[in-house]
Amino acid sequence: MLFKGKEISIDEKIISSIRSLGIDMIHEAESGHPGIVLGAAPILYRLYAKHLKVNPKDPNWLDRDRFVLSAGHGSALLYATLFLAGYNIKLGDLKAFRQLNSKTPGHPEYGVTPGVDLSTGPLGQGIAASVGMAIGEEYLRNYFIKEGKPILNHYTYVFCGDGDLMEGISYEAISLAGTLKLNKLIMIYDSNQICLDGEVDQTMTENIPGRFHAMNWNVLIVEDGEDLNAFDMAIEKAKLSIDKPNLIIVNTVIGKYSKLQGTNKVHGKPLSDDDIYTIKEKMGVRGIPFVVSGDAAQSFQEMISQRVNPIYEEYQKIKETFNDSLKQKLERLEEKNTVLEDLKVSYEKPDTGSEEIRITGEKILNFLAKRNPFLIGGSADVASSTKTYLEDLKDFSFQNRLGRNIRFGVREHAMGAILNGLSLSGLRPFGSTFLAFSDYLKPAIRMAALQNLPVTYIFTHDTFKLGEDGPTHQPIEQLISLRAIPNLEVIRPADANEVIGTYKYVMAKREGPSAVILGKNQSQIQETTSIKDVQKGAYIVKKERKNLGAVLISSGEELQIAIEAAKKLEGKGYDIRVISMPSIELYQKQPMKYKESLLPLGVKTFVIEASSSYSWYEFVYNRKYLITIDQFGKSGKRDELEREFSFDIESVVKQIEDLLK
Amino acid sequence: MLFKGKEISIDEKIISSIRSLGIDMIHEAESGHPGIVLGAAPILYRLYAKHLKVNPKDPNWLDRDRFVLSAGHGSALLYATLFLAGYNIKLGDLKAFRQLNSKTPGHPEYGVTPGVDLSTGPLGQGIAASVGMAIGEEYLRNYFIKEGKPILNHYTYVFCGDGDLMEGISYEAISLAGTLKLNKLIMIYDSNQICLDGEVDQTMTENIPGRFHAMNWNVLIVEDGEDLNAFDMAIEKAKLSIDKPNLIIVNTVIGKYSKLQGTNKVHGKPLSDDDIYTIKEKMGVRGIPFVVSGDAAQSFQEMISQRVNPIYEEYQKIKETFNDSLKQKLERLEEKNTVLEDLKVSYEKPDTGSEEIRITGEKILNFLAKRNPFLIGGSADVASSTKTYLEDLKDFSFQNRLGRNIRFGVREHAMGAILNGLSLSGLRPFGSTFLAFSDYLKPAIRMAALQNLPVTYIFTHDTFKLGEDGPTHQPIEQLISLRAIPNLEVIRPADANEVIGTYKYVMAKREGPSAVILGKNQSQIQETTSIKDVQKGAYIVKKERKNLGAVLISSGEELQIAIEAAKKLEGKGYDIRVISMPSIELYQKQPMKYKESLLPLGVKTFVIEASSSYSWYEFVYNRKYLITIDQFGKSGKRDELEREFSFDIESVVKQIEDLLK
Repeated sequence: MLFKGKEISIDEKIISSIRSLGIDMIHEAESGHPGIVLGAAPILYRLYAKHLKVNPKDPNWLDRDRFVLSAGHGSALLYATLFLAGYNIKLGDLKAFRQLNSKTPGHPEYGVTPGVDLSTGPLGQGIAASVGMAIGEEYLRNYFIKEGKPILNHYTYVFCGDGDLMEGISYEAISLAGTLKLNKLIMIYDSNQICLDGEVDQTMTENIPGRFHAMNWNVLIVEDGEDLNAFDMAIEKAKLSIDKPNLIIVNTVIGKYSKLQGTNKVHGKPLSDDDIYTIKEKMGVRGIPFVVSGDAAQSFQEMISQRVNPIYEEYQKIKETFNDSLKQKLERLEEKNTVLEDLKVSYEKPDTGSEEIRITGEKILNFLAKRNPFLIGGSADVASSTKTYLEDLKDFSFQNRLGRNIRFGVREHAMGAILNGLSLSGLRPFGSTFLAFSDYLKPAIRMAALQNLPVTYIFTHDTFKLGEDGPTHQPIEQLISLRAIPNLEVIRPADANEVIGTYKYVMAKREGPSAVILGKNQSQIQETTSIKDVQKGAYIVKKERKNLGAVLISSGEELQIAIEAAKKLEGKGYDIRVISMPSIELYQKQPMKYKESLLPLGVKTFVIEASSSYSWYEFVYNRKYLITIDQFGKSGKRDELEREFSFDIESVVKQIEDLLK
Repeated sequence: MLFKGKEISIDEKIISSIRSLGIDMIHEAESGHPGIVLGAAPILYRLYAKHLKVNPKDPNWLDRDRFVLSAGHGSALLYATLFLAGYNIKLGDLKAFRQLNSKTPGHPEYGVTPGVDLSTGPLGQGIAASVGMAIGEEYLRNYFIKEGKPILNHYTYVFCGDGDLMEGISYEAISLAGTLKLNKLIMIYDSNQICLDGEVDQTMTENIPGRFHAMNWNVLIVEDGEDLNAFDMAIEKAKLSIDKPNLIIVNTVIGKYSKLQGTNKVHGKPLSDDDIYTIKEKMGVRGIPFVVSGDAAQSFQEMISQRVNPIYEEYQKIKETFNDSLKQKLERLEEKNTVLEDLKVSYEKPDTGSEEIRITGEKILNFLAKRNPFLIGGSADVASSTKTYLEDLKDFSFQNRLGRNIRFGVREHAMGAILNGLSLSGLRPFGSTFLAFSDYLKPAIRMAALQNLPVTYIFTHDTFKLGEDGPTHQPIEQLISLRAIPNLEVIRPADANEVIGTYKYVMAKREGPSAVILGKNQSQIQETTSIKDVQKGAYIVKKERKNLGAVLISSGEELQIAIEAAKKLEGKGYDIRVISMPSIELYQKQPMKYKESLLPLGVKTFVIEASSSYSWYEFVYNRKYLITIDQFGKSGKRDELEREFSFDIESVVKQIEDLLK
């Protein structure tokens, strides 16, 4: 084909098709980000055509290279590319870009669009999650080995923009990736020097190569984002890296060919009809929306299949040669099923009769990790306090890719996103920190919830009762913040039985994140607590004697006070039932009949929990029935604080009695 | 004085006193962090003795150098130093370290301890807040000028550890500080290579000087933290910097003199009696707890007063020479009173009769900024969407230190903490982003709330109705997360009147942070909305006709639906009252009588708000009365989403009618 007397190469044809489709989609949706589509189309084309080990017919292939579009606002670019590359996306799907229940939502969503390996949008999350995927790949490559050869062996690519690199979470992840020497991680930086509000150098003037070198990364530069050969060479060089993750800086022009190219005006709004016309004319493509050259898609798909099909078939063959045990495990990963086979959790009770609940948690977590090779995790530098170290399972490091403890460093936010990446690589990840600092990783927890990933968070030091560290370390509003996240299940066990029940439930989940909340309470409370009832969210731990006078609901550390208070109130002639409610979310899923059997209508109900009232209004008549805390804590001794905030037994009994009188 | 035949210098005497007191405090409290006390005592001593421009007798002196202990777990070190330096802290206060209501809480708290310039504890916050203080100093130095000479002119020092440098927020702030060329910012990095869980190089292997150079900082190294002269030289060199912030890396030994020195075991637990005895013996001080050489304090205080007193007196003199207007403003800063003098907010209504509410917000913010020279702020790269740019007031930059728009870049978390620093420097800061991304700065908002700082957040794009950007951008649980933070007031105005009322209230507050939540609604709803009633949190916007049948509570964008629904229901014979409740927090502060006048007991009450139910259970009989959303949003057109999530007028009317029948 000729255009203005020049032969148009097939490369150009495909790239122009991506660009045309992308801007047509945005135009049709009247919403979207054309700048990145026009600027970065050559990169995405070339990556899929020549480099990514992917099979569009089997987008969930376990050993595919992962591709993360951290700059999620470039969704139109990705969808147009996936469409042309032969993924199960139709032209009609592109026309329904950003529309309700389409396969092509406004930002990429894992599980919605074939070929999308991660939900992205909030900047920086993709970079950190890709670090998790690269860790997962290292672990699995070294785990599934036959005769010295791995069956799993792929790269993780992440595509990012300036905004991603400004977010703190990306620095955290980049620093850790350098320390862990994740050489199979390849980050492509679409460097166009423009962000939403203007030019990047108004807000960021870092020497990017210098910074990445200092953080132990390999840096490669592609001077011109239209130069496909230079891009190929950069990828090939990156693949030669032995002990460093790779950054490929690709200089691009935002909104290439648009009248607004090179400015922030082309970043986030649809282009005018006029501009679209001119762009298409410059590229030599027809102006009719959604019409692209027929051989573009075909050629693109052939490039991929010719290159990848032999590798894909080889993978299937090797898998067949695996022995049953390994093959079975591999198939479980393929089915995204990494729950424990044997959930008979065993727990050794301490001789002394009591221990802190986080120690119980440690024992159970260790017990489970020894039985489930996919369980992996770590802490944001507080494992010795949260008690989540897997004792005999070593640290994950360059020297030991089978280590199961990840030392995240003081990097809560990256930890959260890395857990998401680990989960998507097939592993069963957990991460821990103090509950107060769950705030630091909240945006990453939200992404786990959005993608329904079975990630486990272990948050300890869960109330003001931690004492002397003071209000900065004492959670108040954190429990409600977590409970309000859709899809996240928060469980706050009260004793050893409930810790066992919690982990049994959490580790058997195939979908959705869980937060395990552990206090400083002793594990042993009552013989009446239950392992199996935890999954109901709530159950009776102390029955009334005869005529139910009031119900006390409590969770975690406060259950002990509730039981004590009930006994004291019984001494005063009141007949009290105590409900342990480790999880509001699980309780809400129970049938109405069960709920009413616990909390009969018309009976005065109290809640005792040392956190924000907002979690509990639904259960009580008014706020007087809540024994909760809505102010910041203080530095001091535990028992003094209990009195200060009216959580000592006398205050609790008095508050209840005043309302029962 | 002689020790082991050597003369003990006064420097050593003071340093040993700090170390002794620090470990005695921790021993007495049975809680605290001795590692940093022993490792970094020489730095803190020397800083106060020779460098900091502070007056212990006037710890709030506006022109003092700021000192931020970002490694807040080193509180004992700071308190011991402040005590010896002559701040109003008694020996009894040190003995009450970490005890309830003492002047010496577990982590430093602003407003509790004289000499503490920022509450710290959660790592990284101090670094970012100090960047805010340094910006504040630049602005104020250039604002208060007489005959070319500034009256305010000080440095901001921040002391940090490895953990601070691993947190993403610190990178964000460091990057911005480099771009803004904050040369009067001096960061002292206590480099001891040990973090809570072990050695730093297990988790961080960055070339720190290389990284800081790449981020446009000046880097100085003190090879031995005991070498006071080397430290002096580093500070002097840092002060010569013209266009770069300064990092001074000081190599120290954690837990110096302890048997556990150089290990993570000395980081966060009290030392044994035995160890304390040995440490004191090594230092040549007496073993009796809390007994230190009498002349240590005296000499220390003389060093400071001889150096600083003349400067302090000079400041008072210069102030007297200022004209009335400038002097008055300076005094307002000294009184921490940066509210507008004239709160008669004016607002130009658009000719068309309607505009999006964020545009109204923009006009009012601009109006206020022109009248209050202390109002300063910016956005995390979405000012063009949140509409918070101050049109004629220029960007804050190296070239223009009087610019009032801070381009934070895509750095929400640092923005949050920088706002805290700006507030503490005396300014009246605001920051904006989309409500969904308020999660990114939540930990910094919490610090503003803890310190009761009058910071204003402007969060726009507040419900799923923003449409096509999809669930990552659509807030669900964010409003409850913010409302649950103690001391933070969340206000979600419904129209132009309420936006005016919101800003009037917010900008008149002397204390406490506020979040202004703006949707995509039109500003014009009803003539019945009120400017002045916003501060009551709730008021009637539509009265019932005669016999009150039901109350609809709503806020922000949904108020319009509530009013429409009420009218439709009236057509069906129901008599409905509509309450606008822009702020639950403000409503809760009203007298019971007012509350009952709005929401009479026994009347069916409904709430319409497109966010998590948790905010509203207190107001309704049960969840059926809530028209809220507890699942993630979707990508799609606004009207389609309204139907999808039952927020269209038909669904709303039906849900209410079904319960009224």
